[in-house]
Amino acid sequence: MKRIVTATVRNQSGVLNRITGVMSRRQFNIESISVGHMESSNESRMTFVVHVDNLQQIEQLIKQLHKQIDVLKVSDITDEAMIARELALIKVATVQATRAEIYSLIEPFRASVIDVGKDSIIVQVTGTQDKVEALIELLRPYGLKEIARTGVTAFTRSTKKQEKQQMMIIH
Amino acid sequence: MKRIVTATVRNQSGVLNRITGVMSRRQFNIESISVGHMESSNESRMTFVVHVDNLQQIEQLIKQLHKQIDVLKVSDITDEAMIARELALIKVATVQATRAEIYSLIEPFRASVIDVGKDSIIVQVTGTQDKVEALIELLRPYGLKEIARTGVTAFTRSTKKQEKQQMMIIH
Repeated sequence: MKRIVTATVRNQSGVLNRITGVMSRRQFNIESISVGHMESSNESRMTFVVHVDNLQQIEQLIKQLHKQIDVLKVSDITDEAMIARELALIKVATVQATRAEIYSLIEPFRASVIDVGKDSIIVQVTGTQDKVEALIELLRPYGLKEIARTGVTAFTRSTKKQEKQQMMIIH
Repeated sequence: MKRIVTATVRNQSGVLNRITGVMSRRQFNIESISVGHMESSNESRMTFVVHVDNLQQIEQLIKQLHKQIDVLKVSDITDEAMIARELALIKVATVQATRAEIYSLIEPFRASVIDVGKDSIIVQVTGTQDKVEALIELLRPYGLKEIARTGVTAFTRSTKKQEKQQMMIIH
């Protein structure tokens, strides 16, 4: 099962290495990691997506991470009401005949073309993992030259009663 | 100076730990890291932003990373014609009087409100680091409750002659 875990860490040399060390020793399958500064510049916020066999595994991982120096807070937010988004840049092969087709294809995804080359364009899309993957699959037949994904970043919603609305918000 | 480095790695347990180990031993100051799957599901693409004192340091880092098992390719793309984007989710405190104000403020950034709570909203913005930071500064006076940033993801442009146009593309 896929779990989304967020961690707040102090910006100290080695903290990221200790965290990846814990996951590597326990052979965790990490799908994505993203790390960025927080509002306080002394702290960073990490979001990682891991695959585990059962909930005990993720509980153990969180316990282990909590023990690390400079790790301030770790939570598995998968089952909470939360917002998870990622950004992908997709370089797609184009010829004159397919360009307009691709433009109309990406429009419902609120994706945008941020660079146009002679034989390729770069599409930028933001959304849930499912949305990003759906767009990648749609563009695959045209020829994917390169994909860069940031990995998911996530946090819990403002109001906890909104689980049911989660599916309705698409961008 | 700030450098943007991309790496292609095999999805093997421990590769991320070896990479962060190299940076930690050499006390590199990592600003952000993002790791996501590539078009081939056996490889991942990492983008990291590091601060170094001189170019020699970054050359050494790249050499060291190249020596690691399962690291396929490492490049410093800072000086190339490239596209670098990140995604930020910003939870801002709101009261009824400021809500409309915040909406009009974020509009030129092509940012969108993806969640509305009783006393806060969540703003999603995609763009260059400068753009994301400019919006964060604009929203700061209203009260920042939480920020989650993915870190930069980047790749080189399709056509290499476009350096001059880079400044004109804002979203």
